[in-house]
Amino acid sequence: MKIAIDAMGGDHAPESVVLGVDQAHAEFKDLEFILYGDEKQIRQYLKAKDRVEIVHTTEVISMNDEPVKAIRRKKDSSLVMAAKAVKEKKADALFSCGNTGALLAAGLLIVGRIKGITRPGLLSTLPVVSGQTGAFNLLDSGANADSKAEHLYQYALLGKYYAENVRGVKNARIGLLNNGTEEHKGNKVTQEAYQLLKADQSLNFVGNVEAKALMQGVCDVVVADGFTGNAVLKAIEGTALGVMSLLKDTIKEAGLKGKLGALLLKDDLKGIKTRMDQSQYGGAVLLGVKAPVVKAHGASDAQTVYYTLKQIKTMLDEDMISEFTSYWQTLATKEA
Amino acid sequence: MKIAIDAMGGDHAPESVVLGVDQAHAEFKDLEFILYGDEKQIRQYLKAKDRVEIVHTTEVISMNDEPVKAIRRKKDSSLVMAAKAVKEKKADALFSCGNTGALLAAGLLIVGRIKGITRPGLLSTLPVVSGQTGAFNLLDSGANADSKAEHLYQYALLGKYYAENVRGVKNARIGLLNNGTEEHKGNKVTQEAYQLLKADQSLNFVGNVEAKALMQGVCDVVVADGFTGNAVLKAIEGTALGVMSLLKDTIKEAGLKGKLGALLLKDDLKGIKTRMDQSQYGGAVLLGVKAPVVKAHGASDAQTVYYTLKQIKTMLDEDMISEFTSYWQTLATKEA
Repeated sequence: MKIAIDAMGGDHAPESVVLGVDQAHAEFKDLEFILYGDEKQIRQYLKAKDRVEIVHTTEVISMNDEPVKAIRRKKDSSLVMAAKAVKEKKADALFSCGNTGALLAAGLLIVGRIKGITRPGLLSTLPVVSGQTGAFNLLDSGANADSKAEHLYQYALLGKYYAENVRGVKNARIGLLNNGTEEHKGNKVTQEAYQLLKADQSLNFVGNVEAKALMQGVCDVVVADGFTGNAVLKAIEGTALGVMSLLKDTIKEAGLKGKLGALLLKDDLKGIKTRMDQSQYGGAVLLGVKAPVVKAHGASDAQTVYYTLKQIKTMLDEDMISEFTSYWQTLATKEA
Repeated sequence: MKIAIDAMGGDHAPESVVLGVDQAHAEFKDLEFILYGDEKQIRQYLKAKDRVEIVHTTEVISMNDEPVKAIRRKKDSSLVMAAKAVKEKKADALFSCGNTGALLAAGLLIVGRIKGITRPGLLSTLPVVSGQTGAFNLLDSGANADSKAEHLYQYALLGKYYAENVRGVKNARIGLLNNGTEEHKGNKVTQEAYQLLKADQSLNFVGNVEAKALMQGVCDVVVADGFTGNAVLKAIEGTALGVMSLLKDTIKEAGLKGKLGALLLKDDLKGIKTRMDQSQYGGAVLLGVKAPVVKAHGASDAQTVYYTLKQIKTMLDEDMISEFTSYWQTLATKEA
């Protein structure tokens, strides 16, 4: 199992990427890595000697590059070279902390779509915080700005495969993000999608779910058009950060009594941060393409890179993409 | 200034509604009230003797009633009767804590749209928590599931009038909710809306804003289609509640040291809850209809009802609806 790594993507590249690779390398003896990027810089941090290859590249796609243009023009960039290795079956999966749009474009245009999947979607994993532990998957969280009902249906199948194979969820509960829980609710797209999801007996469809219930664990996978899914993902992230920073400010401005209290409560408060931390679930996955294409946050540290490589290992161990592709072909044959 | 009150809407009606009216009645000597509902139940709580009238009604629209059907069939319901009073100019504004859909339908079908406003939108007010104090308005937060670019443009004008007149914001900064900050970002509707907003020199348009930046105060008014706006509103509410409940659970499960810390920090933590509390800003306003139509949360207590009546008073004091209608007619004349 070989992972192609864009070593130059992200705010702390290549250092945190290489250190994360080293950590995964030490733990998972069956993983091999190809690091794409500036060889001199990579060697500065890399400890691993075996199961690792460096391919020197001279270009870097920055966070500000226009995605499709960058993929087409920067042929020698670390990202494009890594994606090509996956296309040419020299590697089994693609990892980057860089420009999300460029990674999505590389996934679509270089790695390529699974036949019949019209719009691959971006899957994110978020924590459940109320009442119970666990997580939920949200997709599409931002690959496509305009979506049709059939895309949402495909997201449900893709999300089910991910939740069951990678997270080990049994008979994943699928929810449809909507503006009310009743069947008739929603806009044209969700009303149509509801009927498609309801009609598929293979899905454990729990109906419409509202954004406020997601963190309470009402479903394992929630499907949404990429515009709304992206907005909800960012609203959750922004609010969690906002409340945590309010907590921080409150402690900072507290009187002596409050400050003492905060000191005593410190270890417990750290637990909240851990619970809210998305990075423990790995990165965002572009589902519907021919190999695992995974994006970790631009600000990722080595630990997050490690978690994401572990997530990719699970996808490869479970042979998730092949399994899904076979299932999908069976469906297509039945319909034809 | 007379406000028509649906005294039977909400989880704690009529008690909390009547107690809230009493509180507003005591403070604002220029306000008059007409309470629609079960006279016997209302009299049980009402203290005010002057400037208040009770109109006995026999039907109630429940939270589960299908909105438009309920408005058409339950002609003697407290909500329909209150809305009719506004239509017939016996009252200047409409207030309810009941079924949101039914209130929106009553606003559209009974109170009526301002000429030329094709889709009235629901405006919510949410707290800014990071770095600074204050609030922002989000509309449409759920009146319309499908929206066009021209509706988003109308929301910007309506939101500007609200923020400047009711919240006292100077030259309100208008943002467009989008999946990235760059001009070209978004779906078809937001890409078109961007151009409409940019072209109107009367607007202080700050461009695209992402949901994660809203609570940091990047703009005073953010416009969105009603489907996404609703999802973002509920994601913010759900996450804030989720993090707060996580904080509560953490304290509950803390050891002796942590529990002592929580006790010492208690008063400071209360401040966070106050900051996050939306009810201080009043209720959600249906903008684009001929009078203030305002919805307070179903679970509202007397204090929230009071805040919402105060908000309605400001809208009436500032004559916001007439001012907007005149401005809107000037625009229409210019264009014709």
